[in-house]
Amino acid sequence: MIKLFYAVNTCSLASHIALEEAGAEYSTVRVSFAADEQRGPEYLAINPKGRVPAMVTDKGILTETPAMLAFIAQSFPAAGLAPLDDPFAFAQVQAFNSYLCSTVHVAHAHRMRGQRWADDPEAIAAMQRKVPQSVAACFELIEHGMLKGPWVMGEAYTICDPYLFTLAGWLEGDGVDLTPLPRVIAHRRRVSERPAVQKAIAEELS
Amino acid sequence: MIKLFYAVNTCSLASHIALEEAGAEYSTVRVSFAADEQRGPEYLAINPKGRVPAMVTDKGILTETPAMLAFIAQSFPAAGLAPLDDPFAFAQVQAFNSYLCSTVHVAHAHRMRGQRWADDPEAIAAMQRKVPQSVAACFELIEHGMLKGPWVMGEAYTICDPYLFTLAGWLEGDGVDLTPLPRVIAHRRRVSERPAVQKAIAEELS
Repeated sequence: MIKLFYAVNTCSLASHIALEEAGAEYSTVRVSFAADEQRGPEYLAINPKGRVPAMVTDKGILTETPAMLAFIAQSFPAAGLAPLDDPFAFAQVQAFNSYLCSTVHVAHAHRMRGQRWADDPEAIAAMQRKVPQSVAACFELIEHGMLKGPWVMGEAYTICDPYLFTLAGWLEGDGVDLTPLPRVIAHRRRVSERPAVQKAIAEELS
Repeated sequence: MIKLFYAVNTCSLASHIALEEAGAEYSTVRVSFAADEQRGPEYLAINPKGRVPAMVTDKGILTETPAMLAFIAQSFPAAGLAPLDDPFAFAQVQAFNSYLCSTVHVAHAHRMRGQRWADDPEAIAAMQRKVPQSVAACFELIEHGMLKGPWVMGEAYTICDPYLFTLAGWLEGDGVDLTPLPRVIAHRRRVSERPAVQKAIAEELS
């Protein structure tokens, strides 16, 4: 059975939703960022990187959202969460998720995690000031091309959708003007209406 | 036939090596960062993100190194560049590559691409000052656990190896002390001795 380590309001929600969509048997363990549990010895034994998500499986531990999402899609093929029989289509799914992970999430992280990349408080403040612009630039690329509609990859709901939904949930907090992003916002609403999504969110907030 | 768009001294080398290791038929197109070609209309039509690598295939265009590497492994299964029949082992490969893409490469990028995340020149200088420390912290995690040896995943050479090799090539430039990283440096040497690697590098430098 899969055990998902998550923290509230983090990217671990994407994997949580995907497990729910897949019909997986799983349990969850909440990691408290407020109590700095992600840097405690107990959690570092699970994930030495001190980040969420992490997933304990029968075969071992997995980390990194794009890898976990692809693993869920491959482990529960009946759920149809990725085009597993077409390497090119699968690569398109992976490219979208890699962009979210390495560019969009990173742009966002400069608001709260600036100390990863600079020590000077003025520099950290300068990073925070640019977040509305850098995150908006990412989402404009998604709005105008990457998001095919109604789902990210077109007609099929895939592991891209809960991940985009999760990161799009941070837009207001990042100070991004939503006006130029009607397709992203419609997608966010569409995903939020799915029972699996509502169930995962309710569990994290309970 | 595959066409790889690359730039010298960038992460596109990982995909270049993987194509060579796979025995793929491919051609390459050099994108000149010195001439800012990655932001010109011709290249933006290939990759609207204005980054390398990008790969034109018979089915369409792919971007993002982890996605491209997995695509190469899946498209040329005889080369054995990833454990394609084992979702957990495949996910471990993907998790390693995702870490390189979203954490290691990002730490490095704060040396030359700080303007992505701040406008203030003082802030950009503060980011540059932290690069030796933040990149070293990533490579220490790789040294002590993630790199199994002799190859990243153990006995099998996979798509993780050319990617780690490529990023480890930036350590000196990033001002990282190599002394605490003997396993990473031995891995870098081991990869550099492979004919496919030497051929890809020679072509990029020619």
